[in-house]
Amino acid sequence: MAEHKYVYRFGNGTAEGDKSMKALLGGKGANLAEMSSIGLPVPPGFTITTEACKSYYDNERTWPAGLEEQVAEGVRHLEEAMGARLGDANNPLLVSVRSGAAISMPGMMDTVLNLGMNDDVVEGLARKTGNERFAYDAYRRFIDMFGDVVMGVSHEHFEHAIETLKQEKGVKNDVDLSAEDLKVLVDRYKAIYRKHTGYMFPADPMEQLRFAIDAVFKSWNSDRAIKYRQINKIKGLLGTAVNVQAMVFGNMGPNSGTGVCFTRNPSTGEHELYGEFLVNAQGEDVVAGIRTPEPISQMADEFPQAYRELVEVTNRLEKHYKNMQDIEFTVQEGRLFILQTRNGKRTGPAAIKIAVDMVREGLVTKEEAVRDLVEPQHLDQLLHPRFEDEEAYKNKVIGKGLPASPGAAVGQVVFTAEDAEAAKAEGKKVILVRIETSPEDVGGMNAAEGILTSRGGMTSHAAVVARGWGKPCVAGCSDIVINYKNKWFTTGDITVREWDWISINGSTGEVILDRQPLVDPELSGDFGTFMEWVDEYCGMKVRTNADTPADARKAREFGAQGIGLCRTEHMFFEGDRIIAVREMILAETEDERRAALAKLLPYQKEDFRGIFEAMAGLPVTIRLLDPPLHEFLPHDEEGQKEMAETLGISVKEVQAKVELLDEFNPMLGHRGCRLGITYPEITEMQTRAILEAAVELHQEGIDVLPEIMVPLVGTLAEFSNQRAVIERTAEQVFQEKGESIDYLIGTMIEIPRAALTAHEIAQEAEFFSFGTNDLTQLTFGYSRDDAGKFLPYYVDNKILPEDPFQSLDVEGVGQLVRMGTERGRSTKPDLKVGICGEHGGDPASVHFCYEVGMDYVSCSPFRVPIARLAAAQARLQKAQAEAQEAVEA
Amino acid sequence: MAEHKYVYRFGNGTAEGDKSMKALLGGKGANLAEMSSIGLPVPPGFTITTEACKSYYDNERTWPAGLEEQVAEGVRHLEEAMGARLGDANNPLLVSVRSGAAISMPGMMDTVLNLGMNDDVVEGLARKTGNERFAYDAYRRFIDMFGDVVMGVSHEHFEHAIETLKQEKGVKNDVDLSAEDLKVLVDRYKAIYRKHTGYMFPADPMEQLRFAIDAVFKSWNSDRAIKYRQINKIKGLLGTAVNVQAMVFGNMGPNSGTGVCFTRNPSTGEHELYGEFLVNAQGEDVVAGIRTPEPISQMADEFPQAYRELVEVTNRLEKHYKNMQDIEFTVQEGRLFILQTRNGKRTGPAAIKIAVDMVREGLVTKEEAVRDLVEPQHLDQLLHPRFEDEEAYKNKVIGKGLPASPGAAVGQVVFTAEDAEAAKAEGKKVILVRIETSPEDVGGMNAAEGILTSRGGMTSHAAVVARGWGKPCVAGCSDIVINYKNKWFTTGDITVREWDWISINGSTGEVILDRQPLVDPELSGDFGTFMEWVDEYCGMKVRTNADTPADARKAREFGAQGIGLCRTEHMFFEGDRIIAVREMILAETEDERRAALAKLLPYQKEDFRGIFEAMAGLPVTIRLLDPPLHEFLPHDEEGQKEMAETLGISVKEVQAKVELLDEFNPMLGHRGCRLGITYPEITEMQTRAILEAAVELHQEGIDVLPEIMVPLVGTLAEFSNQRAVIERTAEQVFQEKGESIDYLIGTMIEIPRAALTAHEIAQEAEFFSFGTNDLTQLTFGYSRDDAGKFLPYYVDNKILPEDPFQSLDVEGVGQLVRMGTERGRSTKPDLKVGICGEHGGDPASVHFCYEVGMDYVSCSPFRVPIARLAAAQARLQKAQAEAQEAVEA
Repeated sequence: MAEHKYVYRFGNGTAEGDKSMKALLGGKGANLAEMSSIGLPVPPGFTITTEACKSYYDNERTWPAGLEEQVAEGVRHLEEAMGARLGDANNPLLVSVRSGAAISMPGMMDTVLNLGMNDDVVEGLARKTGNERFAYDAYRRFIDMFGDVVMGVSHEHFEHAIETLKQEKGVKNDVDLSAEDLKVLVDRYKAIYRKHTGYMFPADPMEQLRFAIDAVFKSWNSDRAIKYRQINKIKGLLGTAVNVQAMVFGNMGPNSGTGVCFTRNPSTGEHELYGEFLVNAQGEDVVAGIRTPEPISQMADEFPQAYRELVEVTNRLEKHYKNMQDIEFTVQEGRLFILQTRNGKRTGPAAIKIAVDMVREGLVTKEEAVRDLVEPQHLDQLLHPRFEDEEAYKNKVIGKGLPASPGAAVGQVVFTAEDAEAAKAEGKKVILVRIETSPEDVGGMNAAEGILTSRGGMTSHAAVVARGWGKPCVAGCSDIVINYKNKWFTTGDITVREWDWISINGSTGEVILDRQPLVDPELSGDFGTFMEWVDEYCGMKVRTNADTPADARKAREFGAQGIGLCRTEHMFFEGDRIIAVREMILAETEDERRAALAKLLPYQKEDFRGIFEAMAGLPVTIRLLDPPLHEFLPHDEEGQKEMAETLGISVKEVQAKVELLDEFNPMLGHRGCRLGITYPEITEMQTRAILEAAVELHQEGIDVLPEIMVPLVGTLAEFSNQRAVIERTAEQVFQEKGESIDYLIGTMIEIPRAALTAHEIAQEAEFFSFGTNDLTQLTFGYSRDDAGKFLPYYVDNKILPEDPFQSLDVEGVGQLVRMGTERGRSTKPDLKVGICGEHGGDPASVHFCYEVGMDYVSCSPFRVPIARLAAAQARLQKAQAEAQEAVEA
Repeated sequence: MAEHKYVYRFGNGTAEGDKSMKALLGGKGANLAEMSSIGLPVPPGFTITTEACKSYYDNERTWPAGLEEQVAEGVRHLEEAMGARLGDANNPLLVSVRSGAAISMPGMMDTVLNLGMNDDVVEGLARKTGNERFAYDAYRRFIDMFGDVVMGVSHEHFEHAIETLKQEKGVKNDVDLSAEDLKVLVDRYKAIYRKHTGYMFPADPMEQLRFAIDAVFKSWNSDRAIKYRQINKIKGLLGTAVNVQAMVFGNMGPNSGTGVCFTRNPSTGEHELYGEFLVNAQGEDVVAGIRTPEPISQMADEFPQAYRELVEVTNRLEKHYKNMQDIEFTVQEGRLFILQTRNGKRTGPAAIKIAVDMVREGLVTKEEAVRDLVEPQHLDQLLHPRFEDEEAYKNKVIGKGLPASPGAAVGQVVFTAEDAEAAKAEGKKVILVRIETSPEDVGGMNAAEGILTSRGGMTSHAAVVARGWGKPCVAGCSDIVINYKNKWFTTGDITVREWDWISINGSTGEVILDRQPLVDPELSGDFGTFMEWVDEYCGMKVRTNADTPADARKAREFGAQGIGLCRTEHMFFEGDRIIAVREMILAETEDERRAALAKLLPYQKEDFRGIFEAMAGLPVTIRLLDPPLHEFLPHDEEGQKEMAETLGISVKEVQAKVELLDEFNPMLGHRGCRLGITYPEITEMQTRAILEAAVELHQEGIDVLPEIMVPLVGTLAEFSNQRAVIERTAEQVFQEKGESIDYLIGTMIEIPRAALTAHEIAQEAEFFSFGTNDLTQLTFGYSRDDAGKFLPYYVDNKILPEDPFQSLDVEGVGQLVRMGTERGRSTKPDLKVGICGEHGGDPASVHFCYEVGMDYVSCSPFRVPIARLAAAQARLQKAQAEAQEAVEA
């Protein structure tokens, strides 16, 4: 009977395994085999199979027959491939030992490096590298790792010994210890090992290896590993594999070296080898920064053979992995070894160029380029100005807030919206600095280059409005203390006064002193090409949240396929309109209220005409009035006086109304459809404005598709009530105009109860749009305006994986979104479903929306390209996963 | 072949059907048959089966063979039984025709009365009753009803005709029209009928009857009826039955009459016939109030035979229906007819007495008495003082608010908590009148006889606290306008000043001028007896929400089986403690915070000792600090000055802290476990206070069962965090005390996300307690403090069936409660589950909790008996329903 094969070799451009053999070789082993099999010069080694581990447990923790011999043969193969021998003082081979199951799993044994070291070998290594200190440092590290990881001697003991030695020597850092010191340390380490294990430190490399392999097998059933498998429901694995691999050294002399390189320029995307190289050095020397590496191109002169090989490898790697690679390599005595390769990080412009180039070079298909080569976030950098050099200003950063709206802005500090508008009129560039912003500030916000607030979260007023405009904003920067009276803000002991110049980075949240140089966005030809490909694969419509014709046009340029959320209340603040709005609020009777609303009608109608025109041929979802009425009243004395004068009433009357409308929890108060139900005349006016505009445009030959959206619905009865008002008004308008048009009536799903009773609401609603901002607030019980007091703490301390207002909480809020969609469609299978919360522009959330089966996502204009890419990737990645599953099945 | 039977007769103490034949005879028909079969003298009649209706549709809307003859025979039977004939002018019989399916269903045909009327019959009826006006009024009503209901002639046309006639005659009311006027009207009605139907009004009573029966059949498939069946998923019914029944008249002369009576006194429960009787009159005469009826006992003299029969009937009815009956009857020419009988409404004291008496009389079992004879709300009247006569003060009611805490109170008006306390000290009785109350007012609230607020809902601070104490409270009475400065309140043009006497009715929400006489609660022996029976059948534990030893003792007297919610924050306001609390809030460092908390520790420990002692042997669930910290700071200038002085800091510092802690939506802010997570030292102090008290009492030989409850949990990570802090602290305490005790760590489920992820939270939580107040707020997105602006409108206009803060919204919030329970138990099958929101004392909600499988409900002390009864009824009614299903299957 042939002996069972437990050991699979790799190295020297061949391998006995490949990437399909994860179950047998573990993830790490299969990957090493794969790299080797495509001809990469990875340091040679072998993998002990998961079957061996299973056998170990099946046979009361003993090695299966034949394993010992196969390991010995594996070692011999390794020695041959490296031209060195385990334990040979003149030509020593060192190896690493690592665990690796089919699924990556914490709790199992970590790496042991430098295995094979002993008192003789260390001397040989010192001679060979000409670096005694390096050799003894490697030795003492090995004893520590072996003792801790293999034998369970706590790392603390070794740590204590080195601290004591440093005190004795009067030095502060490990690197200050000399080779002689380290020799002493090695002796002390061996003593510690002996004390805690009861044995001498094993000098025989094969014994070391047997111990280490045994330790990996044992770690498969460590408490932590077992618990991890239980929690994550990992079943059906045989055990862990064990990977034994040769160590290589770049510090073996002038004929050795180490380096990192990218297969293309990660900043620009240019197709050129890009990286650094250091002669006679280990990887850690590069990191330590003691010596300055030289550009990779120099290598061509110094190591022509290795360089040629490297170039060849990079081409092979790009072809194989179909992506730009980030490679770590070592040259040991003239011979190139690839230690690691992975997809390289890159800037947005580089990502686009690489994607487009790789398609042109025939390396990838368009589909692959869209699916794998550009991250949605990359596009952000292409759409906004950015700083020329983000490293250059680091010492001028005076505070950090939330990256509320991406892009870079530079301007002079002002503290009021009025000042911002006045300065803009004079041609000045300003940054508007406020504790927080309110709808009254929008004029000044628009006039400013960027906005900085000291309070509020990612979905505060400032953040939402700024993102809508693509204007940089840093929000909730609690590092700064604003003093409106003296017109300055302080941070630490720095004071920034009105008209001082500052810069803000809305992509990182940094607040920076002085004017930092900017570069404009480059919407190069590649961007357009790439976005065309994106749309070929887009799995969902992408709409935009826009409240003005200008925003609508901008969004359309960015590829928006309609408006998913047009907030009508923003229109209420402009110019004289606010006066009529306030008259309406002050009205004591329905007649008075109707009179005030009649004044608003022509404004609203004009707004809608503009938006419908900008979106001709595309659907426009208009949300009826949502915020509580007190948001339209002034809360400061001055504003109240002004309002009293304008309306010709007493200040007391104004104050009385403000007090009457005041709410403990406005978020949960008299707003949304609760307004439209108690004051149906508001719904009537808005419906009339929408449909009069729509019919008139239709009569002018413009294609209009209005969708009227009732906000904050929690019960079918609420929706029915508003639907009746809308339909009644529509009938009147159509009769008056002598023509009727198609329109839809639907609702926001933003109240948990609406999701829970979606099957009922869908009886009458023609579409659902998930308002995931409010849905997140209510599902968590978080006020996004107040969550700043604990949410950052929660994210920092992993109580939440991330801010649920930025990325949809799939586990909780997502359940309601899924439930709402499924229940709604159980009643009405063709129900149109979309999302219009901030999450519509978040890639991970877009993936979730695609999975749930939504018809569209809607986001702010500047997020539209990002959402388009995310939607395409959602579709392509799903197809890929399905294809893979089909292959596996 | 025998003819198929389509017609079932009843009357004269016999019937061909009975109550089990609902499917065939419809609900109404089966009931009439049942009443007749137990010997009740119901007016005779017959029921046409649902099979006939089905046949009608199966045969293209024609009557099945034999039906016509069977109806004719039924009429003959009727004529015989009544000694009168359809269409006989000298001795006319009139009948009613009604639809009635197996399930009550709107949208089908209504009643037609007085069928059989024509020009001859009307004259005969006039002669026989000696009342021409009555006869013609009956005739015109018949034409109207027949035209509208049977032939589809809109009722409006008839209405228009009578309005026109009244104008012609110059009279205002229908009753002002004379017999001659009505003759004219009958002619006009007939003309209307002819105009809209194209036919003469049918004079033949048999033709009228055929038409009416046909109309009932048709109405089974009216649009409304079909839609109703679809919405309510009513399937499997054959059709509707048709009930034809003799009309009887109490105004046929001095030998006739009409009356209503109860089988027992509905006010006191005394076993005596109680009611009124009017000679020679119809039911509507009693209602119109033109003549004064005489007491039922008079009937014994005037109609000895009918009276004897009535007494006999009442005994039979009580035996049959096992409940006190409310009976309508008519005596037609000396002969008694029972028109209707139903369970009689009664006061709380009467309900208890009747239940206990009926068991003693052997009429019902204890089980039946508990299940059917007392409504939970009845108990409320037994536990609080009430007004001697609620009718007497009706003209003094000056406002109506929400019935926030039941019972009656009388006192002099004061406007501040301090005044209330001072007055109480002088022996005065006061009503505390506030716009709203806050935790700072609790001393004065306790000192007052009752509380009246102009703002806030059923779960406002005033309402919750008052209910906890069983103190009468009228909340959110927007009729009154309070002027603190002048110390008065106004309502309409009435001004009530400080020290004026008023009365409030917390059971109705009425505010009444002057001192109204009170009666004290009578906890008679019957009450105790009944509650003992209740506990024999109680299906769940009933705990109480109590924050003080006094409340705990009171609740235990009322039968509480533990504390389901002990709110620790209420303890923070008493006396000097608030100073330490404020020191803690002002603390800038953890050390300062710990120092302030150390001052609070002895207070909290003492509180818990008292509560544990009062609840010895029973579980006590203690909720960790829940409200946002700003609730403990003074928000008015005076209070801030005082606080600054007490703590020896500047007013500015106080104000700065108040401003810093200010929240837009405190309900959704930094509170609950979010406090305990960001300030673990608070959780530590509270845990220490709880467990030190518990261990010490345990060492003194008192049985203590603490359950520590983490509030406002939304994710497992939050719970784990707090659990770790609690366990760490517990270990310390147990080590210090040298002894450990058993305790549980669980959580409130009050955040929608907690219900959605209950399976995860249950991995670590040992119990769940549904906080349905907050869960309702978040599921609906309603702030209970602000909902007053729309919630009353919603309930009045049926947008909500009822206030979801009073009775649990089973359809929406209930889904989350069910989901939370089921998912929690899917992880931990023996998870202890309860409810501690206000709903724990609402009978309908208690039923739901029982159905969901909760272990207990918890409510304020004064609701404990109510919840006990509701819990017993939930179990008994479920058992009854199951038994019935078993019989039917």
